[in-house]
Amino acid sequence: MTTLDEQLKSTQKKVNALIDQILSAEGRPKVLYKASRHLIEAGGKRLRPFVALKACELVGGNEEDALPAATAVELLHSFTLVHDDVMDRSKMRRGVPTVHVLYGIPMAVNAGDLIFARVYDAILDHTNRTHVSSERILRVLSIITQATISVCEGQARDISFEKRKRVTEAEYFEMVRWKTAALYEAAAKVGAIVGGGTEDQISSLGNFAHNAGVAFQIRDDILGLIGDEAVLKKPVGDDIRQGKQTILVTYALKHANQMQRKKILVALSNPKATAKQIQEAIDVIQSLGAVAYANKKAEEFTENAKTQLSSFPDSPAKTALLELAELFITRKY
Amino acid sequence: MTTLDEQLKSTQKKVNALIDQILSAEGRPKVLYKASRHLIEAGGKRLRPFVALKACELVGGNEEDALPAATAVELLHSFTLVHDDVMDRSKMRRGVPTVHVLYGIPMAVNAGDLIFARVYDAILDHTNRTHVSSERILRVLSIITQATISVCEGQARDISFEKRKRVTEAEYFEMVRWKTAALYEAAAKVGAIVGGGTEDQISSLGNFAHNAGVAFQIRDDILGLIGDEAVLKKPVGDDIRQGKQTILVTYALKHANQMQRKKILVALSNPKATAKQIQEAIDVIQSLGAVAYANKKAEEFTENAKTQLSSFPDSPAKTALLELAELFITRKY
Repeated sequence: MTTLDEQLKSTQKKVNALIDQILSAEGRPKVLYKASRHLIEAGGKRLRPFVALKACELVGGNEEDALPAATAVELLHSFTLVHDDVMDRSKMRRGVPTVHVLYGIPMAVNAGDLIFARVYDAILDHTNRTHVSSERILRVLSIITQATISVCEGQARDISFEKRKRVTEAEYFEMVRWKTAALYEAAAKVGAIVGGGTEDQISSLGNFAHNAGVAFQIRDDILGLIGDEAVLKKPVGDDIRQGKQTILVTYALKHANQMQRKKILVALSNPKATAKQIQEAIDVIQSLGAVAYANKKAEEFTENAKTQLSSFPDSPAKTALLELAELFITRKY
Repeated sequence: MTTLDEQLKSTQKKVNALIDQILSAEGRPKVLYKASRHLIEAGGKRLRPFVALKACELVGGNEEDALPAATAVELLHSFTLVHDDVMDRSKMRRGVPTVHVLYGIPMAVNAGDLIFARVYDAILDHTNRTHVSSERILRVLSIITQATISVCEGQARDISFEKRKRVTEAEYFEMVRWKTAALYEAAAKVGAIVGGGTEDQISSLGNFAHNAGVAFQIRDDILGLIGDEAVLKKPVGDDIRQGKQTILVTYALKHANQMQRKKILVALSNPKATAKQIQEAIDVIQSLGAVAYANKKAEEFTENAKTQLSSFPDSPAKTALLELAELFITRKY
């Protein structure tokens, strides 16, 4: 039996090969395609496609049939990252400068749009139509579309949060559901649909991935605060500087005394905050127990996720998904 | 029999009503939806949806069935405008400030993405599935997707042109085919597909709209140079300032002597060009016969477009499309 790590590597290979084909610059404007491939080629764990492929396998489908939809989800994720980096003015991701830093904002916007269009191209042009019915393809496209709308709406909320001093934990979770969990949920659902799953199976797998996705985002927030920059390949403290209202920030602000609050707010959403101010804010947030609290929440969502799979009999695909959910909250990057 | 103008108004009403529904802010992030609706509500002639509806009617289809796909084409057009304005740093369109001027670049990028997603939502969620088969819907989605890819690639070329001193007429036409004609072509094709047209009919209508679309863009270039600002609702001379390599510019630069070339190049792609420098450049371009040449080219493409419809028997829909092609090259705005 192969380990989760080996399975993830195998998915990466397949997804990367299909992306290579879909974003081939052959006979196309070279700079646009270079810009579009930049972030994708810089790395990424292809976790969302993995969820899609394993969901397909778990309902008894042929993993290969789900590869185009799985790859589409990765492209969708990539397009949102390229545009998010423009919106957040982020300078680094995956250890390399972001697309707009290298190619300028116009080309980064354009590249994101192209990748977005290629999401649909991946499904429409590459799905095996003798194996997957038109009805199912249409349903996959609907789910992809609704997930994109959700991500856009989550991003809008995220932007508006950055201008606010206080955001409640409930608002934080709503934003995470829209912006992150929706895409994991879509990945699982499209995999299950292509694989011919029942409505119950599609729904359970969607719920599994949704809850695991929330936990994933909480872990992201933790790593963004106290992760190892060298492993993470992006600057720790950026979230604070950009004013991201993560669960750690909302928790800390709720429990801070006046002096602690001041130390957080002087760094939060302040692009000119010094390294010392950022570190002090991080120290205060940690001292208030925010990391421990976030970890506890992440574990709760993970447990909830795993429960969703209880009706499926044991299988390698189920084991892989359960292990993946654990990885989401233990990963170092 | 209703006039073209009355028919256009009727289309506007129907398309606007469906867009209202699709971009309803009910229960959604308000600012995002306001930003998404801003440009659409500021005006626009809904010419592309009109092409789709008339193409559907011309092949014997029910116009109502094509409304979602027609509206999707308008949304696609709107999304590209919102992002193009970000990329081109345009300040005004349709007589109002552009989305990024009012809402900031992050929200404008985000709004464009949302409108893009809603393109697919319009088709997937609103097409009458008892009238239009899944197969046809998938084909419509493929055409929409390929048109978007074409527009993105055309835009990339457009961006790269602005950095170059000289662009050939052949390169100009290639860019126009990708960026403008592709979308008109897609509008006609999706209408014909929904309407149940034969392959020949779909292809003829596509060619008609493609050629009419090139003529439309040439007219746009002419109006951008010598149009009436009050009617046009955007600053004349912006194309020069932004360095747009229109057919008028490529023609003028080809035929200019050294002094004339200097007068064009001092204003072209120079954001700091004075009003006097812009006017001098326009005067030189006109004096070289560029407008007359562009008009001639536009007429050639229009004639070619009309020829594509010769195999269709006379009908109100055919008359409307032929009149529309004329309107494309005679319009004042």
